[in-house]
Amino acid sequence: MTSSSAARSARRLAVVKGHGTENDFLLVDDRADALDLLPQDVRALADRRAGLGADGVIRLAPSAGLPEGRACLAEDDAAVWFMDYRNADGSVAEMCGNGVRVTALFAEQLGVWDGSGELVLGTRAGVRRVRRVPDPTGAAAPWYAVEMGRWRLPAPPQDAPGDAEVRVTGLEVTRPGLSVDVGNPHTVVALPDERELAAADLTRAPHVAPVPPHGTNVELVVPLGERHGPDGVLVGEVRMRVHERGVGETRSCGTGACAAALAVRTWAGAGAPDVWWVHVPGGTVQVTALPAGRVELAGPAVLVADAVLTLPSSG
Amino acid sequence: MTSSSAARSARRLAVVKGHGTENDFLLVDDRADALDLLPQDVRALADRRAGLGADGVIRLAPSAGLPEGRACLAEDDAAVWFMDYRNADGSVAEMCGNGVRVTALFAEQLGVWDGSGELVLGTRAGVRRVRRVPDPTGAAAPWYAVEMGRWRLPAPPQDAPGDAEVRVTGLEVTRPGLSVDVGNPHTVVALPDERELAAADLTRAPHVAPVPPHGTNVELVVPLGERHGPDGVLVGEVRMRVHERGVGETRSCGTGACAAALAVRTWAGAGAPDVWWVHVPGGTVQVTALPAGRVELAGPAVLVADAVLTLPSSG
Repeated sequence: MTSSSAARSARRLAVVKGHGTENDFLLVDDRADALDLLPQDVRALADRRAGLGADGVIRLAPSAGLPEGRACLAEDDAAVWFMDYRNADGSVAEMCGNGVRVTALFAEQLGVWDGSGELVLGTRAGVRRVRRVPDPTGAAAPWYAVEMGRWRLPAPPQDAPGDAEVRVTGLEVTRPGLSVDVGNPHTVVALPDERELAAADLTRAPHVAPVPPHGTNVELVVPLGERHGPDGVLVGEVRMRVHERGVGETRSCGTGACAAALAVRTWAGAGAPDVWWVHVPGGTVQVTALPAGRVELAGPAVLVADAVLTLPSSG
Repeated sequence: MTSSSAARSARRLAVVKGHGTENDFLLVDDRADALDLLPQDVRALADRRAGLGADGVIRLAPSAGLPEGRACLAEDDAAVWFMDYRNADGSVAEMCGNGVRVTALFAEQLGVWDGSGELVLGTRAGVRRVRRVPDPTGAAAPWYAVEMGRWRLPAPPQDAPGDAEVRVTGLEVTRPGLSVDVGNPHTVVALPDERELAAADLTRAPHVAPVPPHGTNVELVVPLGERHGPDGVLVGEVRMRVHERGVGETRSCGTGACAAALAVRTWAGAGAPDVWWVHVPGGTVQVTALPAGRVELAGPAVLVADAVLTLPSSG
């Protein structure tokens, strides 16, 4: 990284705005590793009214420039570029399932990757491999698939459909929830129909009992049945709304979509599809249960605008 | 306006993002009157996740190019430029007290106005005159003052402090509200202290009785006393939160700040200041009661970013 004083004097910053199923990001090309992106800079960028606004800020930087990146290079020396993800509040985050696809499209636009084979990307959760895939929904956006790592059920359901009780504002009865761990905690609740899904009031956090020690993301899902996809593979479909821990309702949550599909697949039992389309308020993603307890997330990425922003002086 | 087909083929659009006390806008330079800005384009621009995001979109265009602009030119032939304001939902709006300041700064940046004297601007609410004023709070942003037109109390308070009863979620008691008309309807409610102001839950619309026929904006205010401003003039101070009719809680509302100051001034009675600082969540504005029942709003304007956006194809 260059000297802090030099970086602080440059207060105009070029960014690209993009989104994956309306989970939105500001992307910064820092291949030169010249930016000193402080937490207050991230907050100023991500502020939806006083800044440009986004759920997160992604700096594309050389993996060699930071310890977490060098760990990725040790894992795979193809992981030359690092996805330095920051939450809107300025804190660092390990990974973001929707953000990694938008980063892949950004890397393509920059010419860092030609879209063939795999983009091997360093992240704080380790190396992620991204590949371009055909859009199964027939829409126009480029699609990318990324392996999200291992998932598990902390308490697999026996007779009961869940291991928790969930109370959601706007719904009359308490419902069973199934805990799904996708690197972070989720509790998935099945609802009987879309009317009930629409009635849920997620401006309030759902109440989960027993209370998870570190909180949990809550997915409300309506299974929509199964059908054969464009390539003849059996595909399950689910509609979902999500309340993200510490955030509120969002238009999309990558790990939440994985948890939703994996819970419905668990409830469906033997013979259930491995491939699931999850319809979230911001669009559709595809979740695939891979062998050995791994899961893959695929979905669209969109770049919306190029912008040059004036950061407030650091005073 | 140029032919629709020609304009529709140009799908890259240059915009400037700006805000006035965190009421935010996307500004479009259409001095050439070449843009066919359809409601779906406005919605795509203003979408906070799939677009760039803003409370409104402002097209700066020749007044001669539209009927409302030609009416302004008949009123004052200096009103060469028109502030074509659109709400985030694509509908047209008459005026926006915070937006007109940001439009003035945009006009300065474009070289349309040199910042001296008055900028005479056409709007759907008629001609507006804007002038640059010193920032009384000592902050760095450029300040502008604009006359907002006439105000009145539909039912002046006699013995009671209001003409309505207002119930706000999170507050224990129902409180009197004073109706103030500033071109649009407001109901102002005084609270005893900032603790109570913070306790109000404005994710729900306050309940006003009797129910106003066209709804109302609700301002919760805490009077903070009086002091002498930088030029020795007596200044009243008010802290305010606002619930905008049909929108929800916002960071700032220009007409709401006027209504809040005018209500507190009415309650204070004879000898009350004519100048008021209104502290809203997004910053501070200054409201001045002018002779003959008119009111002026002054406050900061900020331009945040230059952007080039790809509009979704109109299909």
